[in-house]
Amino acid sequence: MISVSDALDHLFSLANSLPAETIPLSQANGRSLAAPVSANRDQPPFSASAMDGYAVSEADAVPGATLDVIGEAAAGHSFDGHVTQGQAVRIFTGAPVPAGASRVIIQEDVQRIGDTISISENLDHGFHIRPAGGDFRRGQHIESPRVLRPSDIALLAAMNIAEVPVMRKPRVAILSTGDELVMPGEVPGPDQIIASNSFGLQAMLRDLGAEARLLPIARDTKDSLAMAFSLADDADLMITIGGASVGDHDLVGDVAQDLGMERSFYKIAMRPGKPLMAGRLANGAMMIGLPGNPVSAMVCGHIFVQPVIRAMLGLGQSTAPRLSAPLAAPIPPNGPREHYMRARLENGTLTVFENQDSSLLSILSQANALAIRPPNDPAQNAGSHLQYLPI
Amino acid sequence: MISVSDALDHLFSLANSLPAETIPLSQANGRSLAAPVSANRDQPPFSASAMDGYAVSEADAVPGATLDVIGEAAAGHSFDGHVTQGQAVRIFTGAPVPAGASRVIIQEDVQRIGDTISISENLDHGFHIRPAGGDFRRGQHIESPRVLRPSDIALLAAMNIAEVPVMRKPRVAILSTGDELVMPGEVPGPDQIIASNSFGLQAMLRDLGAEARLLPIARDTKDSLAMAFSLADDADLMITIGGASVGDHDLVGDVAQDLGMERSFYKIAMRPGKPLMAGRLANGAMMIGLPGNPVSAMVCGHIFVQPVIRAMLGLGQSTAPRLSAPLAAPIPPNGPREHYMRARLENGTLTVFENQDSSLLSILSQANALAIRPPNDPAQNAGSHLQYLPI
Repeated sequence: MISVSDALDHLFSLANSLPAETIPLSQANGRSLAAPVSANRDQPPFSASAMDGYAVSEADAVPGATLDVIGEAAAGHSFDGHVTQGQAVRIFTGAPVPAGASRVIIQEDVQRIGDTISISENLDHGFHIRPAGGDFRRGQHIESPRVLRPSDIALLAAMNIAEVPVMRKPRVAILSTGDELVMPGEVPGPDQIIASNSFGLQAMLRDLGAEARLLPIARDTKDSLAMAFSLADDADLMITIGGASVGDHDLVGDVAQDLGMERSFYKIAMRPGKPLMAGRLANGAMMIGLPGNPVSAMVCGHIFVQPVIRAMLGLGQSTAPRLSAPLAAPIPPNGPREHYMRARLENGTLTVFENQDSSLLSILSQANALAIRPPNDPAQNAGSHLQYLPI
Repeated sequence: MISVSDALDHLFSLANSLPAETIPLSQANGRSLAAPVSANRDQPPFSASAMDGYAVSEADAVPGATLDVIGEAAAGHSFDGHVTQGQAVRIFTGAPVPAGASRVIIQEDVQRIGDTISISENLDHGFHIRPAGGDFRRGQHIESPRVLRPSDIALLAAMNIAEVPVMRKPRVAILSTGDELVMPGEVPGPDQIIASNSFGLQAMLRDLGAEARLLPIARDTKDSLAMAFSLADDADLMITIGGASVGDHDLVGDVAQDLGMERSFYKIAMRPGKPLMAGRLANGAMMIGLPGNPVSAMVCGHIFVQPVIRAMLGLGQSTAPRLSAPLAAPIPPNGPREHYMRARLENGTLTVFENQDSSLLSILSQANALAIRPPNDPAQNAGSHLQYLPI
């Protein structure tokens, strides 16, 4: 048996980084930036007023001074002339500060009569000018890799980046296997259940920034499996669920090997989970075989598939950061395998569900965290801190 | 001036809840469940084996017992006969437990020779059977409202829910206004800058589950604004950015009033921010007018637009939960207005950026939290706890 972290190292060695592609800015949120992007301009491109008021030369900014208003500057409409002593230009937020002006007197500090202003006694000390390039300068970088967020999108726009280099989305094909499975909406036979893992994993993969599609359910025959594999020809990653041990045969592994897969089995010291199959198909695609048990498949999705997708997106070879929270109630000792226990984080404390049977989707759906127990972790009291992964 | 929470109450009173729609399960992740959904079946639908092994009657589960293997049960293929004393059925995980059997002996506890098994001395105590309905029973509910996550999608699939009632996505039209603005990719004039707020808000709104589209930039004329408003005819929410005070005129407000808007201005005791315009247009759409300052627009998006979208999605009238973390470094006292300071949470501690100028998108892009200072909050030392919103 190997540790979760050793298994991840094996998986990372199979994960190809994907090529970059260029997409319009309005589609770039949530995507992984593929290369540093540099600003096409300074922001602001000129000294700009930070307030509505009057632009004056510093020497005129004295309480009681009376100035002639010689023009107006608004956002998008600069004042073309020059401000000299005794003069002021009416100015609005975002407007270029006119030549000769070095300070903006806010309108609250001014009394205007006709085209004359007088500066009030309680003049503030602010200059109210945003210097050119104060936000960023031409050539300044947004570093990669990073997952672009809304504030990055706003910054890229301000930098005049209309098209953004991002990593292509990993194309993932998801294959559920088993004679017992039917699709949601079908009428199952008495021995049958509804395929659920594939739908849960598809949702998870899309949240991670992958393109994920479901292949038709494969039956427990080599022909059916081979047909399904053939439909995944353009996938970067093939995920199979279940079927690694059907009857006494390992049909999925056999078919994958017929397709040229170099196969590894990892017997991983974890719960819930089973030996994980992984390898590379002859067409270059990575393959991960997940256990068929509903909760095991979803937990292995969080623990193994999520870091693989991030690696494919160029985001490094690391696991999701583990957080820590105190327990709401005591829990019994752990066995010899690392245990990812379904738990609920509420008001800062972790409640570990009592029933950890790996078939219970109803419990998984209530969970928002996987509490992580190291091998042979002793019993823990309420209040002791446990590591967890938000899910 | 009113508080942020009073302003939100006004906004909630304007936010219509949207109608429900029914969509395929594979598109339901991230959507707001519109009505409780109940399971169409029991899961498992039959008592199922939790392990690979042999199904026997409890009386035969004794170390040293020798049993005849009379058949096989696999997932999707039940054993049709009855297990009587002295008999066993080879069984695999997920298979229906045959009539007459009440316990599964795991294969590790058995020695098999031909069609005979003998039970080893270190027989475990487990029954290894998942009872019918142990995960959920027909009629059991997934409660609404809730935002569906991948584990909910898996659970809905298992319940045989192929189509899901969700709230329709709010349709949001975003209108940037100002003669100074050009679109990313254009060549700005010397007085111009690139529209950035609209792109950042579009990304934010999509993350919140809205359909968000950008209207053409409106120029600072009534005609241009009226044209842009007319393009937003089917929107549930119209968001304008900037233009509330152009020169000495409030063009956006004037045009909205011409279109029948009942308008409210909220002068809110917060930073960064400005008076927020809100109201309802004659066509029933809600309108929110955001300030044009880049960071103010994005912060007002987090503080005001996010709760409004959640309310439209039927998720209640509440703000995002505030978290708390210790400060990495001391900060000066706050002024009389609630201050949402750009900050970075790293390794559990909050660092508040020194430069809080509301024009700096480069700072906002580095921030992952808004540290919240109450009005007149005194100076805080390193280590003291501050509330924050993750962004």
